[in-house]
Amino acid sequence: MSFPDRKKKAAAGAKAAGVNALLVTHLPDVRYLCGFTGSNAALVLAGSRAVLFTDGRYTAQAKAEARGTRVVIAKKPAVTAACEWLEAAKVRRCGFDAAHTTVAALDGMRKAVSGKVRRGMFQPTEPLVAAMREVKDAEEIARIRKAAALGCSLFDGMLEFLDPGMTEMAVAAELEHRARLAGAEAMSFETIVASGLRSSMPHGHATMTKLPKSGFLTLDFGVVLAGYMSDMTRTVHLGKARAGEREVYDSVLEAQEAAVAKVAPGVVTAEIDEAARSVLRRAKLAKYFSHSTGHGVGLEIHEGPRLAAKQTQKLEEGMVITIEPGVYLPGRFGVRIEDMVLVTSKGGEVLTPSVKAWIEL
Amino acid sequence: MSFPDRKKKAAAGAKAAGVNALLVTHLPDVRYLCGFTGSNAALVLAGSRAVLFTDGRYTAQAKAEARGTRVVIAKKPAVTAACEWLEAAKVRRCGFDAAHTTVAALDGMRKAVSGKVRRGMFQPTEPLVAAMREVKDAEEIARIRKAAALGCSLFDGMLEFLDPGMTEMAVAAELEHRARLAGAEAMSFETIVASGLRSSMPHGHATMTKLPKSGFLTLDFGVVLAGYMSDMTRTVHLGKARAGEREVYDSVLEAQEAAVAKVAPGVVTAEIDEAARSVLRRAKLAKYFSHSTGHGVGLEIHEGPRLAAKQTQKLEEGMVITIEPGVYLPGRFGVRIEDMVLVTSKGGEVLTPSVKAWIEL
Repeated sequence: MSFPDRKKKAAAGAKAAGVNALLVTHLPDVRYLCGFTGSNAALVLAGSRAVLFTDGRYTAQAKAEARGTRVVIAKKPAVTAACEWLEAAKVRRCGFDAAHTTVAALDGMRKAVSGKVRRGMFQPTEPLVAAMREVKDAEEIARIRKAAALGCSLFDGMLEFLDPGMTEMAVAAELEHRARLAGAEAMSFETIVASGLRSSMPHGHATMTKLPKSGFLTLDFGVVLAGYMSDMTRTVHLGKARAGEREVYDSVLEAQEAAVAKVAPGVVTAEIDEAARSVLRRAKLAKYFSHSTGHGVGLEIHEGPRLAAKQTQKLEEGMVITIEPGVYLPGRFGVRIEDMVLVTSKGGEVLTPSVKAWIEL
Repeated sequence: MSFPDRKKKAAAGAKAAGVNALLVTHLPDVRYLCGFTGSNAALVLAGSRAVLFTDGRYTAQAKAEARGTRVVIAKKPAVTAACEWLEAAKVRRCGFDAAHTTVAALDGMRKAVSGKVRRGMFQPTEPLVAAMREVKDAEEIARIRKAAALGCSLFDGMLEFLDPGMTEMAVAAELEHRARLAGAEAMSFETIVASGLRSSMPHGHATMTKLPKSGFLTLDFGVVLAGYMSDMTRTVHLGKARAGEREVYDSVLEAQEAAVAKVAPGVVTAEIDEAARSVLRRAKLAKYFSHSTGHGVGLEIHEGPRLAAKQTQKLEEGMVITIEPGVYLPGRFGVRIEDMVLVTSKGGEVLTPSVKAWIEL
């Protein structure tokens, strides 16, 4: 979908929600709607009009990136300038995203307009743009594919690099260095390198701990390419496995594959979660699976939909989600396996095909 | 200040603000008050009681990090569990930070308590913890010193590495790789490597552009060590300078040094900004200095105080700020020079002593 089409669709959504305009301040939403990637922005959509407010650091960049959108370089905070524009344009009801607007920001928005129009001016709306962003278009899918493929090639390359005695930090350093040299703008999030006992911590960031001679190593990382993020996890074993390790690994893998197999348009996300969880329940490991099964990925690392118990949302063609069950045995070890999966008309296509079978290095 | 002392001070601040408790959800604030570094947390301070709510991923980590704070592993969202605890504990007025609580989150907090206590339960308070964090204690200053020193040694090392023909991305990759190997947990923000014409963009992230044979190169980066961030910028010249380049550089350096010289407890931050701006005004470059002069740094890369025109806040001993004037000539080039400065009883101590004199590589 082109930027004009996205803006048009969002404006139509605003109209359907009973407001005359939309004030968009969440930066990934701004980027999605008009292409601007700067760190300070407020975008107003009012019918067929679109105006982007930013500051003097971004004069050249805003014009280059936000083609087809009027750009205003504001001396005041961008949101204040946007609110003043709304009043001058005689907009009387403007929607905003309650999930990304702080109480203080809303207070500032109200103060930016005069008392005579303040009442009822700003209306919280459902997160319209976030909902649009859940279903990716062809251009977005192409970018996500590239990011996911880079993630896989980095993981595959790391298999030859890993050695007991290296620190977790050195593993992260090497991985990130290779990512940068391959053109990644950034990592999607702080790289997780959790080895040995530390693999039992789902979110163990890299430390100066040395990789053990024998034990698990969990690598959870992602890269950003052209704004879009990848996310994948593999757990490999260093040295010979001890009693119980292989069984837990196989259960997590079975759970992960069961959930992937369930992906298709129309399936409720809680069912995907349950597909993974029920495998672990049979293996008496469910209580060690202490997080949800996955989430959408795109311009942000965590987007909708959420794949967790009690979620009623249905998958749609074009969504890109993660499937990442894990088992964490306190004081012992942990295993997590994560793929990115594109929801297609036929089911789910795994975008991160790096090997998932048991690896002993 | 120890964690118990920080909690005590924040609780006293809450009492002075007319509330019985404080609900803290901004993660750097949670970390500052109790030591917990996880990605999901709500901390309640109610008189002498402190309770940290998080989820099952952090059972072991929360106990290890948040010593002296009661930890509750919640099945519900942490904030919901915290609100239910507040009601059960018969707290009737709880403060929250309006600058870090979204409109949707506040709505959720209200819904988490019963109708009979909802009215008046949640009161926006001034950002109490953010204000405490502006003045660093000895332990924090020691950590910031280490981060700043690592930043300097990385910059110094890069001077031997830079070469025309390398891409900006390769420069960022090398810098970040060295940072990781030296133990940095992460970079403070996306590394800025802006060369040649791109140096005229204040926020030019590294691209696949090759370093020019002749032109400026701006490096703006920081590292995170033990949670605390560094931030520094240097602009060096590759090859022989062209007409006008040296003059602009010298003006920015003079502006930067004038602002640093002005740092002392009791000085209004707008005066620091004006010290830099007036030098550039005399050089007829002020209109190309399109951002503010600096900001506080600590657990976050942008904290208070803000050093900009019209700011009335006064510097205090123990604050750590950046001083970073820049001049950006559209379509030509840009220069920025940035130090971190500790406010001491005697004035300002530069924490980033890497050379600022003109460098031609």
